[in-house]
Amino acid sequence: MIATTKRHSMTTPTDRTIHVEREFDASRDRVWRAFTEPELAAQWWGRGNKLVIERDEVQRGGHWRYVEHSPDGQVNGFEGRYREVMPKDRISRTFEWDGMPGYTILETVEFFDTTDGRTRVVMTSLFFSAEERDGMLHSGMEGGMAESFAALDRLLGQSW
Amino acid sequence: MIATTKRHSMTTPTDRTIHVEREFDASRDRVWRAFTEPELAAQWWGRGNKLVIERDEVQRGGHWRYVEHSPDGQVNGFEGRYREVMPKDRISRTFEWDGMPGYTILETVEFFDTTDGRTRVVMTSLFFSAEERDGMLHSGMEGGMAESFAALDRLLGQSW
Repeated sequence: MIATTKRHSMTTPTDRTIHVEREFDASRDRVWRAFTEPELAAQWWGRGNKLVIERDEVQRGGHWRYVEHSPDGQVNGFEGRYREVMPKDRISRTFEWDGMPGYTILETVEFFDTTDGRTRVVMTSLFFSAEERDGMLHSGMEGGMAESFAALDRLLGQSW
Repeated sequence: MIATTKRHSMTTPTDRTIHVEREFDASRDRVWRAFTEPELAAQWWGRGNKLVIERDEVQRGGHWRYVEHSPDGQVNGFEGRYREVMPKDRISRTFEWDGMPGYTILETVEFFDTTDGRTRVVMTSLFFSAEERDGMLHSGMEGGMAESFAALDRLLGQSW
């Protein structure tokens, strides 16, 4: 494994979207579990920080709420609701950060097998406006996302 | 009062928005209270049906959840989160119906004094997509809204 050299791609196909692709050295089954089982998600979603999963009902209509605790004492809550859950294929859910309440994002995550037995994850975020999309782009989200993906690489390298 | 002849106007300024205007025979202070005090909102928001307000934290970041009980036994939940609350001027909050979870709408309600001492309410709904907007237009929302506004007329005609 050459996890340290892995990179995601990030593009902006429309003025209200962010499109991210990333491959992981694991089967689609394991990547799906890492995204949807709270005890696994808690180990990577918060970039290595402590993550408290207060609620995660992974089904259509279910609510989720994750709270990240940074080493410097910052607490950041995130929450939303599931719009669609197609096991191992696709999740669509809303996402908002407590710091910008009501600035809801529609996040879609798709999981694909690669020809060499790895998994490609494609994430699309849709915002209410171009201004809100740009605000997210300038928030440092790309670095935070890269940290989360690196933590997910480490988790997928473990046996569970 | 000629409440029975009052009409709202409904337009679609963009392919992702619905714009509604309606005047009420009451001061801005009373109309604001009818929108934001749970015991008052419960008397009109559900079109005259029983409305249980499970949660209504009218402040930035606060959550709301209303559940309407129709005479035929149907139960419909609605919920969201407050993005902005400027007392007597403006509320912006997200809105979603349990039947279409994750199909979030950003709803903005503005309150204006008319020159003759009444109140004009301007409501703008912003959808993630044109398809979602069109789905709402075809859902019978306009008739339901007119029923709610008529119930609000009746409430504003009472003393409280």
